[in-house]
Amino acid sequence: MKDRYEIRFAGSGGQGVILAAVVVGEAAAIYEGLNSVQTQSYGPEARGGKSKSEVVISRSDIDYPKATTPDLQIILNQASCDEFIGQTGKDGIVIVDDTYVSSVPETDAQVFSLPIVKTAREKIGRELVTNMVALGVTAWVLEKKGLMKTESLKQAVLARVPKGTEEMNEKAFIEGYNLMKDTL
Amino acid sequence: MKDRYEIRFAGSGGQGVILAAVVVGEAAAIYEGLNSVQTQSYGPEARGGKSKSEVVISRSDIDYPKATTPDLQIILNQASCDEFIGQTGKDGIVIVDDTYVSSVPETDAQVFSLPIVKTAREKIGRELVTNMVALGVTAWVLEKKGLMKTESLKQAVLARVPKGTEEMNEKAFIEGYNLMKDTL
Repeated sequence: MKDRYEIRFAGSGGQGVILAAVVVGEAAAIYEGLNSVQTQSYGPEARGGKSKSEVVISRSDIDYPKATTPDLQIILNQASCDEFIGQTGKDGIVIVDDTYVSSVPETDAQVFSLPIVKTAREKIGRELVTNMVALGVTAWVLEKKGLMKTESLKQAVLARVPKGTEEMNEKAFIEGYNLMKDTL
Repeated sequence: MKDRYEIRFAGSGGQGVILAAVVVGEAAAIYEGLNSVQTQSYGPEARGGKSKSEVVISRSDIDYPKATTPDLQIILNQASCDEFIGQTGKDGIVIVDDTYVSSVPETDAQVFSLPIVKTAREKIGRELVTNMVALGVTAWVLEKKGLMKTESLKQAVLARVPKGTEEMNEKAFIEGYNLMKDTL
């Protein structure tokens, strides 16, 4: 694995991007024995409907905790896409939601437009689990990159969601994983 | 206000320290127009029952996002107290829970031992709202320091907790505020 891998989830408030990043950070540290730092930065843009949440994963100590050139960005709304896509790292991957991101600015990154929100709505019946679908998508990428087993991320999801909602969240996670798998 | 104010919540997994710090970060940015960065760092200790979550607040840009010498620490278990109390900043405040922290190592910091967990259990009937009681305590300190209005923090709590639980969480928050008020 690369020695430092930066992941950013971005969207609007209520799409659960903080929990998504927290779960990745916990999966990395608790189930994979890696170091991770998970961050939210709020500036004036916190009032503009752009919410971002980052996690940096490394086998070594993490000196700088913010994602400056994310290797993977999962972007769930247009405003975040417009602002953040240009920061994607070299050979980075961007995954956008096809409901809320209608136009993707030109970029050298590899971009996938996936029905993340639609899957949450139509397969699970709750847009609330958008972040869990996004985590399933993320799991596929992290596994391919040799960073993390999908099972670790799934365990971290189950440890973090409210009791009684495990089944729904696990289903959303698996749907997300399959979305990405079926795309490639 | 000081130009940079560092707050750390620490405890065991399940005590809700991440949400507590997220709420402070959102209150600072969205309701007070400040900058804030909120962080979780996980290393090998993530498997040892110590969970910490930090938020840095400033009127200026925040160059370094981690809390290295926290001005305020809210500590909810013994292992975290033993590890973190020595890092408290000059003139810093430490608030420990009197159920789970039975002995406080010697420190120059001002220490308050408060029935945070007991209040959650006995006044609200749910230990689950421990973090909301802790946030009420925090609100009192941040208001006294001129950093934030209690109302801002309360609004951020209400915006973040699950629908249908607002009343319980608000009550826990107010109980926490009164705990600290009645101590001084």
